[in-house]
Amino acid sequence: MNFASDNAAPVAPEILKAIADANEGAALAYGNDLWTRRVEQKLAALFEHEVAVFLVPTGTAANALAIAHLAPPWGAVLCHAESHVITDECGAPEFFGGGIKLVGLAGEAGKIAPATLEAALTGRQWGGPHHVTPAVLSLSQATEAGTVYRVDEIRSLAELAHARGLAVHMDGARLANALAQMNASPAQATWQAGVDVLSFGASKGGALAAEAIVFFDPSRGAGMSDRRKRGGHLVSKHRFIAAQIEAYVAGGLWLRLARHANAMAERLGQGLAAAGLAPIWPVEANEVFVALPGAAVERLKAKGASFYPWVTESTAKPIPRDATLVRLVASFATTPEDVELFVATTRAR
Amino acid sequence: MNFASDNAAPVAPEILKAIADANEGAALAYGNDLWTRRVEQKLAALFEHEVAVFLVPTGTAANALAIAHLAPPWGAVLCHAESHVITDECGAPEFFGGGIKLVGLAGEAGKIAPATLEAALTGRQWGGPHHVTPAVLSLSQATEAGTVYRVDEIRSLAELAHARGLAVHMDGARLANALAQMNASPAQATWQAGVDVLSFGASKGGALAAEAIVFFDPSRGAGMSDRRKRGGHLVSKHRFIAAQIEAYVAGGLWLRLARHANAMAERLGQGLAAAGLAPIWPVEANEVFVALPGAAVERLKAKGASFYPWVTESTAKPIPRDATLVRLVASFATTPEDVELFVATTRAR
Amino acid sequence: MNFASDNAAPVAPEILKAIADANEGAALAYGNDLWTRRVEQKLAALFEHEVAVFLVPTGTAANALAIAHLAPPWGAVLCHAESHVITDECGAPEFFGGGIKLVGLAGEAGKIAPATLEAALTGRQWGGPHHVTPAVLSLSQATEAGTVYRVDEIRSLAELAHARGLAVHMDGARLANALAQMNASPAQATWQAGVDVLSFGASKGGALAAEAIVFFDPSRGAGMSDRRKRGGHLVSKHRFIAAQIEAYVAGGLWLRLARHANAMAERLGQGLAAAGLAPIWPVEANEVFVALPGAAVERLKAKGASFYPWVTESTAKPIPRDATLVRLVASFATTPEDVELFVATTRAR
Amino acid sequence: MNFASDNAAPVAPEILKAIADANEGAALAYGNDLWTRRVEQKLAALFEHEVAVFLVPTGTAANALAIAHLAPPWGAVLCHAESHVITDECGAPEFFGGGIKLVGLAGEAGKIAPATLEAALTGRQWGGPHHVTPAVLSLSQATEAGTVYRVDEIRSLAELAHARGLAVHMDGARLANALAQMNASPAQATWQAGVDVLSFGASKGGALAAEAIVFFDPSRGAGMSDRRKRGGHLVSKHRFIAAQIEAYVAGGLWLRLARHANAMAERLGQGLAAAGLAPIWPVEANEVFVALPGAAVERLKAKGASFYPWVTESTAKPIPRDATLVRLVASFATTPEDVELFVATTRAR
Repeated sequence: MNFASDNAAPVAPEILKAIADANEGAALAYGNDLWTRRVEQKLAALFEHEVAVFLVPTGTAANALAIAHLAPPWGAVLCHAESHVITDECGAPEFFGGGIKLVGLAGEAGKIAPATLEAALTGRQWGGPHHVTPAVLSLSQATEAGTVYRVDEIRSLAELAHARGLAVHMDGARLANALAQMNASPAQATWQAGVDVLSFGASKGGALAAEAIVFFDPSRGAGMSDRRKRGGHLVSKHRFIAAQIEAYVAGGLWLRLARHANAMAERLGQGLAAAGLAPIWPVEANEVFVALPGAAVERLKAKGASFYPWVTESTAKPIPRDATLVRLVASFATTPEDVELFVATTRAR
Repeated sequence: MNFASDNAAPVAPEILKAIADANEGAALAYGNDLWTRRVEQKLAALFEHEVAVFLVPTGTAANALAIAHLAPPWGAVLCHAESHVITDECGAPEFFGGGIKLVGLAGEAGKIAPATLEAALTGRQWGGPHHVTPAVLSLSQATEAGTVYRVDEIRSLAELAHARGLAVHMDGARLANALAQMNASPAQATWQAGVDVLSFGASKGGALAAEAIVFFDPSRGAGMSDRRKRGGHLVSKHRFIAAQIEAYVAGGLWLRLARHANAMAERLGQGLAAAGLAPIWPVEANEVFVALPGAAVERLKAKGASFYPWVTESTAKPIPRDATLVRLVASFATTPEDVELFVATTRAR
Repeated sequence: MNFASDNAAPVAPEILKAIADANEGAALAYGNDLWTRRVEQKLAALFEHEVAVFLVPTGTAANALAIAHLAPPWGAVLCHAESHVITDECGAPEFFGGGIKLVGLAGEAGKIAPATLEAALTGRQWGGPHHVTPAVLSLSQATEAGTVYRVDEIRSLAELAHARGLAVHMDGARLANALAQMNASPAQATWQAGVDVLSFGASKGGALAAEAIVFFDPSRGAGMSDRRKRGGHLVSKHRFIAAQIEAYVAGGLWLRLARHANAMAERLGQGLAAAGLAPIWPVEANEVFVALPGAAVERLKAKGASFYPWVTESTAKPIPRDATLVRLVASFATTPEDVELFVATTRAR
Repeated sequence: MNFASDNAAPVAPEILKAIADANEGAALAYGNDLWTRRVEQKLAALFEHEVAVFLVPTGTAANALAIAHLAPPWGAVLCHAESHVITDECGAPEFFGGGIKLVGLAGEAGKIAPATLEAALTGRQWGGPHHVTPAVLSLSQATEAGTVYRVDEIRSLAELAHARGLAVHMDGARLANALAQMNASPAQATWQAGVDVLSFGASKGGALAAEAIVFFDPSRGAGMSDRRKRGGHLVSKHRFIAAQIEAYVAGGLWLRLARHANAMAERLGQGLAAAGLAPIWPVEANEVFVALPGAAVERLKAKGASFYPWVTESTAKPIPRDATLVRLVASFATTPEDVELFVATTRAR
């Protein structure tokens, strides 16, 4: 019963097989290989747009490198106050950006409302020389609260950002989960809605360690190759990173895996609701946030269930005194049996 | 006939198998897993010393993080003028170190002579506030010239460094190749000779993407966990990095693979010498540097041989006018047939 | 009628004279001069404690260098959400700190309440590897709201900070104004209350361009000389910076100048209150914050009054719809006539 | 007998008077004042070109900010191996540049020869992702060896640089001394010869603490205002920095002061040569480098003469065994009596 993280999941068999298949003979290092060429073409096809692609081994690297590339050192990055980039990356964007400032915006269920963005852009003192200058809007998709920005929400936010000269970055560590939920194509949910640069996640979705930074305006990627190298993020045996991404998107595997994870989360949310433990936010991707009574937590821990407590200011709902708010993450490897056992254990007495 | 790089080699089957074996069930992310615990223990056993270990996906990350951890921003890092850290990492140590200065020292065949180090430490203006302060001596083992520091050479250099308050870092991207050549244990060639922190390479030796930063004084590693994370180098599905290192050192695999690579390089060097093309530096690890006549280069390229030209100031030997100095790298996957064909092609007319 | 800033004031005559007096003959550069030696001794005497002193030309430099010296790159700096270091220095602390994170805490009238600090320290996720680690508490004295931390308030905050391993920095750009208001000695209001490092301001108080970073534990200042130099903040003709600070503290000039500025602010506040325009915060130093009706603003501008509008979330008091919240700053050069004319103009119709 | 540094000199009376004259009434802070407007116009007139001007208090700030503005973090700065920016600023350019790399080129008498620059640009491995990319050529004028680049030398170097896409920075800490020696206007010796950005020094020439970063293409200065602020180099009472520069250039004061300093250095060099102690490099500005016998050094020290020893690899001339190479710097305040006494003391027995 692992609901701790989708990073606790193993590697999808199709992706592991692709790694093994790539392990044949010599291939030039540092991306001068056929796998890398192919993955560039496949991502262009997937997004129906010319792209510049830079592969890296971690999501933190993808986010920090992308953001640093979009903002001058005196730039501000606007993001949700509980987004991964501002809370969980130990200051990586600040480091890569030469001391940029991340500014957290409040928002119910992990999402920034357009009115909140507008108020932030107009109601504060911005701009040199005394104040930092807004340079990037970073959106997490799916959000840290397991919710999903709809296409028109992204468009509204991107329009506000672009009107003020900000670039739009999307942290798509769980883009697959978001897309599996939306009735939208990868193109519609990204560049057509105004996203300039995407951290295209694969690790959480089933890869071993592979993420892609995708520039929808390739000219914006100039210099990123150097930035990646000096960040230590140019993997030498690059074909194995490329092979992972290639397998991840081949034949829609990424969406298949995400649909399963989402279905497991939905089932879990419904089961808990039926047990009187309704999730605090809509279950729109592969995460469920619920306040569990102390006794339930103890029973679950006794049965070896794995999950983390969660702290948030993104809800007005009170957490009962004897309860703990927890985050439950489903992955491609979560089974219905895991879900049923979890729900049953919360009920048991 | 790939002699371009040991990074062009595939993954050793034993290591690929370890990755597959680790792909079973859930495991907590970010290093809170059994594989990581085991690799820490195994490296301690291998080096016969308490160690603090931090795994990262690239050699550049290992070097840059380690060096940044040893030097204040106003520190200088003394290294060979043609070492990887100063020439081939696009300024990664400078970036991670907040603008440290790398100072290249001359030296025949990629090695720093103790007298050169002493002259550099005593003959220049060092120290604040106007001048940077020497903080780290970084030694490449094996060197970029395919030569090997002997234990007493390391000890002499480390003594000079320590006497002046410098820490000693070893870039061991090819430590296996060096050890396979030396009559010394891992302990003797590192901490017993004065090495404080080691970049323990595995990728070039046969892993997919795995390197370890090894502190022989674990207290010196305090804060490195944070530095690694904010550098984007904490791999989420960490068990797969740990499994690579575990397999790499299990049963002496790393030294077996390195011995083969070294043997292939030696055979190549001897074959070329017999053909009148003596390597310019002693072949002590898995690299051969030789001046090839233009006609030979053309024949080799026509047969699909892969290798890079090399530029150096670390030799007084003149390169003939019609010749090109090239670097030939053997790996665990190099075959005697590759070697023989390469040598024969240089001879053919 | 300049109420725009104490930085708009000229240089106090005593300080200008000290500069002229220092302009005699040669003196070694970069602080190896008698003026610098003397200022170190005089600050030690003033604070009744051994100190390490580093002079710099701007307050932003003093704050950013001091904070960077106290926090590792993965450190967090807790400060008031509207303090100068977080809002008005264009990211200087982040830049000098290698990408540290400044975390703003709410608080009425520019002050952090101990309960707020405690909640911030205990109620969030802190610490590696995913989260930054609180490293510094930075207090502005006087605050950006023109209020003053009392000695016991500083002590309470410093105790909470120290108990969690944070260092305490004080941004004393207006320390003179605060001390002129308090019944406390420089020692009592700084190190005896728990301040570890002080940005001792003089420019706002009457100097040309001179600030001192004061470490009350001199060993903590190790390396600061290098940090200052590489920040470009070691003034070459250093005697002239030292002479300013020396004159500033000689014979209590700094407190005399501050008492005058405070008195002018108090008079202004009382005059406005009598005119039905009560300041929104207590006038405790040299600043008055008041909501001025639009007509009054226009009349004042017409008479050449100089002042800035102010945006704040540090008060629950509503600003009337037709009014503008403004900041009025008095300096050592403000005259009673300026004050009277200002007040009269707000009344006039 | 101060020959230690031109920074050991006092402030020129005309400049001190300008500071005092500016000390009248209020003036908006941070450069929104009349003095700053005027100095911008006067520098435009002086250089006969549209300029963007940024004033800072130190030469290290001017150099580091300018260079950082011209190079991406993965850029290389080519400069003389003994130039101030690479040896004497404690890594300031590396810090401000986010970890850029300074590459020192050899050259007799502190000057880079065009052939040396060409060899450096063509004979090494440059460019991403593995190697840094040459981005800036930084020339010191006058050089650290007290010599002067002629207009055609600057033009040759700048043409090579521009042809490769490098920007040309001039460290003009002693530009006045160079111009006083050359038969060239400020325009001819800078932008007309290919200089893109100038650190226009005034402190060494007679100011208290004032330098100007001058962009000859103003659009290149976009963002510099922010960079300066976050570097802590925006002086609050800015009129006093501007007043110094204004007085420095008014009526040709800067060149008059420099001519005197140069004349004193020339007299010193001739006197020493007549005493059998010929300077090792041509005396073209305000510095003399000479090998003094140990006995002469002792006599000079006994008489209170102040000067520093010098270490260089920029000459093939051997330093006699019992002699010390020293640097002697004349300033606007050096007197013929100082010079005569110095020379006489070297002769005395």
